[in-house]
Amino acid sequence: SEDLYPSRQGVSQCSERRDPVVYAPVDRPMPIDQSQLEAYAEHGFLVLEDLFSDVEVRMFQQEMERLSGDPEVRASGETITEPGHGDVRSIFRVHQRSALFKKLATDPRLAELARYILDDEVYLHQSRLNYKPGFRGKAFYWHSDFETWHVEDGMPRMRALSMSITLTENVDTNGPLMLVPGSHRQFVACQGETPENHYKASLKQQEYGIPSDDQLKRLIDRGSIVTAKCKPGSVILFDCNLIHGSNGNITPAPRANVFFVYNALSNRVVEPFCCRRPRPEYICSREHIVPLSD
Amino acid sequence: SEDLYPSRQGVSQCSERRDPVVYAPVDRPMPIDQSQLEAYAEHGFLVLEDLFSDVEVRMFQQEMERLSGDPEVRASGETITEPGHGDVRSIFRVHQRSALFKKLATDPRLAELARYILDDEVYLHQSRLNYKPGFRGKAFYWHSDFETWHVEDGMPRMRALSMSITLTENVDTNGPLMLVPGSHRQFVACQGETPENHYKASLKQQEYGIPSDDQLKRLIDRGSIVTAKCKPGSVILFDCNLIHGSNGNITPAPRANVFFVYNALSNRVVEPFCCRRPRPEYICSREHIVPLSD
Repeated sequence: SEDLYPSRQGVSQCSERRDPVVYAPVDRPMPIDQSQLEAYAEHGFLVLEDLFSDVEVRMFQQEMERLSGDPEVRASGETITEPGHGDVRSIFRVHQRSALFKKLATDPRLAELARYILDDEVYLHQSRLNYKPGFRGKAFYWHSDFETWHVEDGMPRMRALSMSITLTENVDTNGPLMLVPGSHRQFVACQGETPENHYKASLKQQEYGIPSDDQLKRLIDRGSIVTAKCKPGSVILFDCNLIHGSNGNITPAPRANVFFVYNALSNRVVEPFCCRRPRPEYICSREHIVPLSD
Repeated sequence: SEDLYPSRQGVSQCSERRDPVVYAPVDRPMPIDQSQLEAYAEHGFLVLEDLFSDVEVRMFQQEMERLSGDPEVRASGETITEPGHGDVRSIFRVHQRSALFKKLATDPRLAELARYILDDEVYLHQSRLNYKPGFRGKAFYWHSDFETWHVEDGMPRMRALSMSITLTENVDTNGPLMLVPGSHRQFVACQGETPENHYKASLKQQEYGIPSDDQLKRLIDRGSIVTAKCKPGSVILFDCNLIHGSNGNITPAPRANVFFVYNALSNRVVEPFCCRRPRPEYICSREHIVPLSD
């Protein structure tokens, strides 16, 4: 199929986004306020607090502890550890490893919002538990998730969004998520090609598919940087093409979240646009695409 | 001479500080408010804004640009570059490389304050220009400067203080200085020995002379973390034994400061307590100790 968003073809440049941000249907009740929806369309993200009760949040936290302490999960090829240390950094396919996180992903408070914004049935393109340890948490460099999902996974259009449900306090010193408001309206084509099996390295430290210094400076000069400081159990909802990153963390306070990527069913992945073999199923749903139901 | 603060001898432990924080004389006029002096004694640091005029700050910034762009300075063995990149990280002995920074170090607004708090003549134990570039500024892990100055330089007692004069905006996202209030009242003996020529590696990334996770957690639980967010030209004054560090910086905004260490003349360095050869003169004044005068 046609490549509407070419990247990693030697040119670093910005182009206008060719897809809507909010596809919301006119004939269905809005699951959030009109003003929130407008803020999401404009800035490319939204932080929702108080969606979950304290009891629910405590359950999510306990489930995180259980999974990251489980020797079988740690030994799995679907678990990524911190470079230089054995600390767990990401556990993939948590919606299949955990009944609780499956229930969370399909919870109408999240899934119905995704269906509404994308105006389609949705499925999970990816799910993961992210754990950034204290003292030596590494930075995650600026990137648009869509750039990678498009080039390496074959996601055709910008009709997907992410929800990060925070499981720890996010304060200014422990490497919170940094977002660049408005950056989702530009597509930043990145330089460089995609190495074979890039995902093995990029999950630890991304070197391809990142915007140039100049592009970043321009986007940030235009939109500034917003830090998602929020309490455990908050939902950071952001567009698939929003530029985001996080600094490292030398404080004792770890940072964790569970992360779901909702993609419109009509936007299911095709062959990767980089002409490499597709990334494995645990990183990108391809063979087993199942629309979420309550 | 007797080692009052043994460290790097295999044991990680905290002990009470055995020296005053404020030595201030009773018979001399106070150069700062009583409340500021008390805050300094209690927390171990103080941020002074508006000591310098905009014109002065602009001159310091221009001098920084000049020095870090000077090919001779860059090629000097006294300039440290960012690991993996050529970016300048620190330029040492700036009070000897620059007439303007010498004038700044001896400026009564700074030097008289140092003389007052330490109740002695003072000299510069070290001076440097620190430059943390944007996009890929590295973290500086938690440490007490005194631990290193004592072990590696032979500074006998805690009777020294640092002043960092900021040359850029310090915001929560660009890796500002993080301080642990009250940590200056404990001496944290660190594990591990001191390798020969440790300074060559430690100026880029410190691996010895850093507190254990447990010690850090205890100090931070007790005192929290304070971030020095301030405008260019602010003075961050802190005790030689205060635990501090900074996260990395992926934002485009660089962070720079000029840094002076004032030591009491009566506290001049002796032989290093680690039985290694002393660090070079540009890192630690030893042969050429000159009390500052206006």
